Amino acid sequence: MESVFSDEQKVELLADLVKFKSVNDGEEQVANYISQLFKKHNISTQVMPVAKNRVNLIAEVGSGKPVIGISGHMDVVDPGDLSRWDTDPFVLTEKEGKLFGRGATDMKSGLAAFIIALIDIKEFNLLKSGTIRLMATVGEEIGEQGSQTFFEQNTMDDVDALVIGEPSGYNLVYAHKGSMDIKLTSQGKAAHSSMPDLGYNAIDPLLNILSAANKQFGSTGKKSQLLGNLSFNTTVFNGGNQVNSIPEEAVAEINVRTIPEFNNHEVTKIMQELVDDENKKGAKVDMDVYMSLNSVQHSKDNKLINSAKSIGEKYFKNDIPKMVSPGVTDASNLLKNKDVEFPFIVFGPGEPNVCHQPNEYVEKQMYLDFIDIYKQLLTEY
Amino acid sequence: MESVFSDEQKVELLADLVKFKSVNDGEEQVANYISQLFKKHNISTQVMPVAKNRVNLIAEVGSGKPVIGISGHMDVVDPGDLSRWDTDPFVLTEKEGKLFGRGATDMKSGLAAFIIALIDIKEFNLLKSGTIRLMATVGEEIGEQGSQTFFEQNTMDDVDALVIGEPSGYNLVYAHKGSMDIKLTSQGKAAHSSMPDLGYNAIDPLLNILSAANKQFGSTGKKSQLLGNLSFNTTVFNGGNQVNSIPEEAVAEINVRTIPEFNNHEVTKIMQELVDDENKKGAKVDMDVYMSLNSVQHSKDNKLINSAKSIGEKYFKNDIPKMVSPGVTDASNLLKNKDVEFPFIVFGPGEPNVCHQPNEYVEKQMYLDFIDIYKQLLTEY
Repeated sequence: MESVFSDEQKVELLADLVKFKSVNDGEEQVANYISQLFKKHNISTQVMPVAKNRVNLIAEVGSGKPVIGISGHMDVVDPGDLSRWDTDPFVLTEKEGKLFGRGATDMKSGLAAFIIALIDIKEFNLLKSGTIRLMATVGEEIGEQGSQTFFEQNTMDDVDALVIGEPSGYNLVYAHKGSMDIKLTSQGKAAHSSMPDLGYNAIDPLLNILSAANKQFGSTGKKSQLLGNLSFNTTVFNGGNQVNSIPEEAVAEINVRTIPEFNNHEVTKIMQELVDDENKKGAKVDMDVYMSLNSVQHSKDNKLINSAKSIGEKYFKNDIPKMVSPGVTDASNLLKNKDVEFPFIVFGPGEPNVCHQPNEYVEKQMYLDFIDIYKQLLTEY
Repeated sequence: MESVFSDEQKVELLADLVKFKSVNDGEEQVANYISQLFKKHNISTQVMPVAKNRVNLIAEVGSGKPVIGISGHMDVVDPGDLSRWDTDPFVLTEKEGKLFGRGATDMKSGLAAFIIALIDIKEFNLLKSGTIRLMATVGEEIGEQGSQTFFEQNTMDDVDALVIGEPSGYNLVYAHKGSMDIKLTSQGKAAHSSMPDLGYNAIDPLLNILSAANKQFGSTGKKSQLLGNLSFNTTVFNGGNQVNSIPEEAVAEINVRTIPEFNNHEVTKIMQELVDDENKKGAKVDMDVYMSLNSVQHSKDNKLINSAKSIGEKYFKNDIPKMVSPGVTDASNLLKNKDVEFPFIVFGPGEPNVCHQPNEYVEKQMYLDFIDIYKQLLTEY
């Protein structure tokens, strides 16, 4: 398919994005790079501050209805222990047809494919009607603040369909669980362990709340045919500092994966009741639901998903199954208030199992194919 | 009462002991100092290695039966935050009749009083019959290893009565609870919180064990008329390190205060059953009872306690009540295998409420009085 970019230039563009160390911060540099590139090709862009050094970006091609939204995040997760990497995580390195680097899969390749597809669509005037709106977000990996900001700014209100370019590989994702992060902080009173009555054990109320929650969430019988059970996990627990002192503070963090049948609101309500019960007995426990992303479950039979399937199968010469994914995406925020028939897919280059790992990579050919797939999908829809 | 030492020299001797930073280590220096002093006064001493730089000390005056044991520890607790001290904790400082320093109360003043009493008894030939055996221990504040070593070396076998010089102030202590420190280590398997089934939550088994233990120990109905209830406290809990990961390790530490009606052996048995129940369900929890000191409860009516009471009341011109203390002492080890009629008291200079605190102090007069009280008590018994 004709392109403004050679294959080498397509890889260079991805390498440029990988160079930015946008580890849950500094997405402004990525957005500025994209803005300047789009400006050269007369694509209108807008950057919107979310926090210091952190901006969302919108770019549009075409005009009027329908509006197809495409979205990717500009942040990456920390590379972690560098000794576990064979190459510099921020220098895209090609080896045996694979492109290695932090974000090569999750998801600077998806973002780069969107950018190139948009430029080609603009330059070759491929869009016959409607609008393609790119929404590039900050902070997807931690808290999904960028997509929350887009929701609050009504950026999705006139959008008729959404493609998120997160790595799906040779699959089409149309649903995922929600996710909540909850922090419980318990204040007690220190005392020597020989005189416990002079203190108040801050750990005990959390033991009571968390073991009761485990029982309650494990036995509701509520289940999603598609997404399975809700899962509730205490993932962090820290209290006390010496065996001989009654602990005066304890903190627990919890991650909950929610389903439409047992949603975030219900979880919050149950947890608040358990906390209130302890506080009535004299505890001082504070609950902070500091992240709450809804589950996403949309129709698996519509024009968007079916056309992505047939285009994808043509390129990859293989069945592209429609499936659910374990992880959350910006869709939790972007699709708030959209009904179950709203066309939505996660479809992007890269294998999910290399995300967040050392030696993260994307197959070069898959990346190049997705550019063409996007061009076809976005202009045909 | 006549003495080899002037009051100033008595204070100097205590200052010399305080100078040694024997913070749960290095008791060898203290023991060497005492040995050299006793040598000058022809008192036979013996030092017995317990660990590197840590030695117990035995010194004897007199011969034959009865044998009265006197015991004090040579270690002190950490001074903690130095900014909370008005003086250098390792330089004994006199202000308004009080002697400030780490160990001034707990319990270098008790130890110094024993040493001076022994020297005077020797030099003035005050002992008409029997033996006084000083047993100075290491590591009383953490684990009581020194007294355990004395027990294992049969040092207490021929002893007929025991005085421990821990700070009792104007009270006589004849009983205290036991104390156990238990560590639970739970091994799980890490996984991303979106795929919890690929992992095993290491925190959950500890939640189950500890909340069940709280219920079980809180509802036994077993109570000591004298010592009150057993207390069970989870004092430290650490598991997991990020909200998005199923935790692969969790560690809890527990302190239990035991009573004769519900002893250390029964506690261990119950805890092991709770751990075994979780392990049968797939958990990998290891239990380590790393400290186990028995409760001590002896007769409150015998020649030792009564004569300490009448001598003390003569000096302090006040009632000296017989009571129980919240904390444990080396008696937990030294009195193993002794029956309830064995004469035992804790009686020593210093107020228990300043132990382990910044600006720990002993009243100078109380320290000087206890030297004379010991001389009288040990020679009269």
